[in-house]
Amino acid sequence: MVFKRSITKKLVTAAVLSTVVVGSFAGLNQDEAKAEKESTAKIKNVIFLIGDGMGPSTVAAHRYMKNDSSTKMMEPTEFDKYLVGMQTTYPDDPAQKITDSASAATAMASGIKTYNNAIGMDNEKNPYETVLERAKEYGKATGLVATSEITHATPASYGAHDESRRNMDAIADDYYYELINGEHKVDIMLGGGSKNFVPADGRKKDTTNLAEKFVEDGYSFVTNKEELMNDKNGQVLGLFAKGGLPKMIDRDDSIPSLEEMTTTAIERLNQDEDGFFLMVEGSQIDWAEHDNDVVGTMSEMEDFERAFKAAIDFAKNDGETLVVTTADHATGGLTLGANTKAKTSGDYNFLVNPIKAFNKTPDYIAAELYASGASAEVESVMKKYIDNSFYSQIKPEEIQAVKDAVVAKNGTAIDNAIEAIVNDHSVTGWTTGGHTGEEVPVYAFGPEKSRFKGLIDNTDQAKIIFQLLEENNK
Amino acid sequence: MVFKRSITKKLVTAAVLSTVVVGSFAGLNQDEAKAEKESTAKIKNVIFLIGDGMGPSTVAAHRYMKNDSSTKMMEPTEFDKYLVGMQTTYPDDPAQKITDSASAATAMASGIKTYNNAIGMDNEKNPYETVLERAKEYGKATGLVATSEITHATPASYGAHDESRRNMDAIADDYYYELINGEHKVDIMLGGGSKNFVPADGRKKDTTNLAEKFVEDGYSFVTNKEELMNDKNGQVLGLFAKGGLPKMIDRDDSIPSLEEMTTTAIERLNQDEDGFFLMVEGSQIDWAEHDNDVVGTMSEMEDFERAFKAAIDFAKNDGETLVVTTADHATGGLTLGANTKAKTSGDYNFLVNPIKAFNKTPDYIAAELYASGASAEVESVMKKYIDNSFYSQIKPEEIQAVKDAVVAKNGTAIDNAIEAIVNDHSVTGWTTGGHTGEEVPVYAFGPEKSRFKGLIDNTDQAKIIFQLLEENNK
Repeated sequence: MVFKRSITKKLVTAAVLSTVVVGSFAGLNQDEAKAEKESTAKIKNVIFLIGDGMGPSTVAAHRYMKNDSSTKMMEPTEFDKYLVGMQTTYPDDPAQKITDSASAATAMASGIKTYNNAIGMDNEKNPYETVLERAKEYGKATGLVATSEITHATPASYGAHDESRRNMDAIADDYYYELINGEHKVDIMLGGGSKNFVPADGRKKDTTNLAEKFVEDGYSFVTNKEELMNDKNGQVLGLFAKGGLPKMIDRDDSIPSLEEMTTTAIERLNQDEDGFFLMVEGSQIDWAEHDNDVVGTMSEMEDFERAFKAAIDFAKNDGETLVVTTADHATGGLTLGANTKAKTSGDYNFLVNPIKAFNKTPDYIAAELYASGASAEVESVMKKYIDNSFYSQIKPEEIQAVKDAVVAKNGTAIDNAIEAIVNDHSVTGWTTGGHTGEEVPVYAFGPEKSRFKGLIDNTDQAKIIFQLLEENNK
Repeated sequence: MVFKRSITKKLVTAAVLSTVVVGSFAGLNQDEAKAEKESTAKIKNVIFLIGDGMGPSTVAAHRYMKNDSSTKMMEPTEFDKYLVGMQTTYPDDPAQKITDSASAATAMASGIKTYNNAIGMDNEKNPYETVLERAKEYGKATGLVATSEITHATPASYGAHDESRRNMDAIADDYYYELINGEHKVDIMLGGGSKNFVPADGRKKDTTNLAEKFVEDGYSFVTNKEELMNDKNGQVLGLFAKGGLPKMIDRDDSIPSLEEMTTTAIERLNQDEDGFFLMVEGSQIDWAEHDNDVVGTMSEMEDFERAFKAAIDFAKNDGETLVVTTADHATGGLTLGANTKAKTSGDYNFLVNPIKAFNKTPDYIAAELYASGASAEVESVMKKYIDNSFYSQIKPEEIQAVKDAVVAKNGTAIDNAIEAIVNDHSVTGWTTGGHTGEEVPVYAFGPEKSRFKGLIDNTDQAKIIFQLLEENNK
């Protein structure tokens, strides 16, 4: 290259770059492509993981959180090397163009577009078969694992049929009363929600104790981590909270992690020689995003990633397991970067240290402050849960806003004031307490993973899995 | 399936769904997979299209805009069937963790991570070879097409080397003075920005008229659509505005569309028997998003999609052309859905009719209202540019806010008041006037398109294209 003028620029040629692709994600994908060719196995097991609310910004924020800042290139997350495409999530609702979790999960479970709030039903209230039900029909073991109530919209859409997601007692009934070939359709149910099974815990529909009835039929019923880990039954109902489980960073030792629930579910289901279908949901990524709480969102992404890795590790070793992972929709309008005014030279940042400084969620801290009610204790309580490397940067007026909310005895305002601190300092943006309509990433590993590539629709998830179950049942 | 209780649910089996995948995107991707196998051609031409600011929400909003609401399933856009994955966009900047367009385009053009504002240089100010320069080195014809100034950050990063994107006069110098094998490195330059080439139009660096110098060296110089279309020269400088071009819905007939510029660029470049490299940028998707203007954003997405289709149509016919399309980053924190308070039953919507009702951008309308300065004319001017199907739904207080801004003679406030109307009614959310950090979609068509699949980094774009240029130059 010769310049017409003698310009003092000596071009670095990129020849060194062009021969070997290093330090980037493309290398990972090529390794994966080689491994993929080796797998022409049949599909015995399907593990379908749903990060509720895990939109493109959520996975990006998680990558920033996991990044080693001492290296020039970002480290990939456990998910990254398995990206095969994205999926659209819109519902078929007369009034709403953005999906809820029920409509989206029904699409992924049964392959139909339907209205928001529908559990396994179309707009005419016809119940549709789910991929979990088909797997059971074919003699496979089945499981549902979630950090929400196990009767919440997403798991419900795989194992129940109801005109409204709100009928969670009736959804629990479906798990018990709807039999396939004379058997209960879900062998493993792990999560929260004893309030929908046990009258003493809050079940309102009738006085039937469904937990007792499952035990009568041979299931184990466990209510804490120790009981879960000491039990080996192939059929188990594990309900570790009346409602949803505490978030990962708020949990004590009595509550199993999503990874632990996933691992024990796989071990039990894998005893069935006909194989299994397992749906695992990271339920509360979405809940934290509804609350515009980036600390909780990142806690639940970590919990979900560990469960994902457990599924991948099993599948790699097994060789006949397909793992598909996606989200039902994005939530909160989460963005990395916010509030920049200037066009080309604003503060283009997303800073993870303020988020990492929290060892409990704002919800947890707010609950303690609300219970205390003493504005004099605000600083000592916050210092207990926020590392001083960041706490020292919080401005007096930001602390004062928390104190004002404590004095006003307004729990939501306390929570919001703490969230405002971490959102502002981390440069996290939010547009809504609801859902948003962008497509979400799709990850796949194992035999036939290429069926899920490119842009697919959420209904395609069920259509493809029905096909694969059928093809592998011959 | 037999139920234990006689529950009045007759399950619809999804057997009809499982045999044929219909009415969904998966079918499209499978068609594409078949077509892909047929193409083992060498790569003669590379067309790289960049939708500046075209994040996941931007492509989703565009799909909602193009949707036929009378059908249950959304129609795919021109982009959708070519999705192969996503790319990360973060810079290597000492102060900023979210990229600007210069750093991102330098990554895609030269394969290096660098600081925000850098044009073809790393953090130590070393200039790096670009894929366009490599293509020229190999004897190919080259082109840059944009709707911004042709010296703006994205095109500049393919054909220039400067420590700052702001030095646009110097960037124009690079296009002229930096020669490769004794020839100008960019054969086709089409876009805006005569202010950086022609002193009379605003060039400040020196009195050199670069347009005249290009003409002396055999280039055509054209300044409107008619001149462009009547010219067939294989080397052409076309500058259709002093700065950026008007947005698609604001343009008059003197300004070529991005599709027209792309088509004529391809026709000219395709005369070179050694093939060509062409970069096409939909520059102002980003500009509209910086302004939080959903009308302008959708205008520029439509403009970009038509250019993309022209590239794909050429490549399909040619058989030796690789087309890669992506974004440099997302902008504005655009979300489909916003401002919902309730957790599970809020207003989950994104409504396109208010957006479609505009036949000019809010910027355009605001400029006319500002020039008029008469609050009495606000309604008649707005009715001229906003279809009554939506105008009739605008609330009196929303009109009043526009009037107040006109009376205050505040152009920005007029623009913002109009944008607030369309954002609120369409349920569009924004978090920033800057960029955001989620990964962006990657589309590819043609030979070796699978090299771009999965999650890649923006630097991988250059690394892979350098490899392909080298492999096909043997």
